[in-house]
Amino acid sequence: MNAFAPIATATDLSPLRRFVTDFAGLLDDTDDLDRILRDGGGLLADLVAQDDWLPEEYARPHPERYQQYLLHCDSAERFSVVSFVWGPGQATPIHDHRVWGLVGVLSGTERVQSFHHSDHDGALVQYGATRTLHPGEIEAIDPREGDIHRVENGQSDRTSISIHVYGANIGAVERATYRASGEERPFISGYANTTLPNLWANLWDISRKA
Amino acid sequence: MNAFAPIATATDLSPLRRFVTDFAGLLDDTDDLDRILRDGGGLLADLVAQDDWLPEEYARPHPERYQQYLLHCDSAERFSVVSFVWGPGQATPIHDHRVWGLVGVLSGTERVQSFHHSDHDGALVQYGATRTLHPGEIEAIDPREGDIHRVENGQSDRTSISIHVYGANIGAVERATYRASGEERPFISGYANTTLPNLWANLWDISRKA
Ligand SMILES: [Fe+3]
Ligand SMILES: [Fe+3]
Ligand SMILES: [Mg+2]
Repeated sequence: MNAFAPIATATDLSPLRRFVTDFAGLLDDTDDLDRILRDGGGLLADLVAQDDWLPEEYARPHPERYQQYLLHCDSAERFSVVSFVWGPGQATPIHDHRVWGLVGVLSGTERVQSFHHSDHDGALVQYGATRTLHPGEIEAIDPREGDIHRVENGQSDRTSISIHVYGANIGAVERATYRASGEERPFISGYANTTLPNLWANLWDISRKA
Repeated sequence: MNAFAPIATATDLSPLRRFVTDFAGLLDDTDDLDRILRDGGGLLADLVAQDDWLPEEYARPHPERYQQYLLHCDSAERFSVVSFVWGPGQATPIHDHRVWGLVGVLSGTERVQSFHHSDHDGALVQYGATRTLHPGEIEAIDPREGDIHRVENGQSDRTSISIHVYGANIGAVERATYRASGEERPFISGYANTTLPNLWANLWDISRKA
């Protein structure tokens, strides 16, 4: 490779490109949250049914903490698509979202525990059982029903990766993490990456295949 | 910098991010081409009024040919934003677009010559004078009025850069280049880059400044 050759895209990004286009179409069609979560969940299930499209740069674990790599943000910030990469033993703090979300496991497993505020003192208590999500499984985050959870890598010896979609530019949303007491701390997640995959590169190949 | 530090974004991308958001808002408001070109031209004029935001990776000339770097593509491919980078002496072939476009000069100068098909034999003839566009100047491409032109660097000894917006994912549009005889050749431009700038990174800084 000489200095002027563009860096080759190692993976075929057309599944992600199709997902972005279809998700934008869904949001053009409806503002109904039930329909967004149902039909959007179907689109995400299609996307995570194969795990060969995510470029290595956006699948790389950090030795100390889970990573959030932005893959696409809608022009009007109606939605964002993010890869979450979990090293062994890594977990989020207990946190909320304040917008709708969809989670699809790409590889490995994710363990999710929901919380809610107890009625008498506002402390956080576990809500329902801990769920383990496997590759291809989808979970919705519906702020109408409860928005606080903690997520961890379900694998003790390997990386797990999930693809998330949120109803905003999630890296900029002013939200909160929580202590067990229920005490909130302001939280803006940002993103780990300063470059995004160009989903629209190599289109002549994609169009020939389509 | 260690292996795990994210690559620092050398420039403040908030002008481009604001442009993308505002352009999406304009297209949500109207399908009227006159208004898109007028108001979109105003947005582009604001964007190119300063030349300090374009990261170096998307401002780099190629020794042999002009470069088209995708900066953003709308989720639904309603518009794309591209930097054109011209080394000394570089020029496009005569070509068309088949969608609306807006061109704003960021640095250096661009020389533009329009063409149309002559009535008697279909050969291409120059249409109007050659125009030189200077930094901050905007030109519209309106397929209703004539869509064929040739663009070249107006500087013989330095790089020129312009920012273009098109009413489609321009890298994938099936269009044409032309010989002087008027003969068409199929043309799909693609893009030179496989990564895009993350306009949504470092949002905590941007939001503090806004
Ligand atoms: Fe979460
Ligand atoms: Fe052109
Ligand atoms: Mg709309």
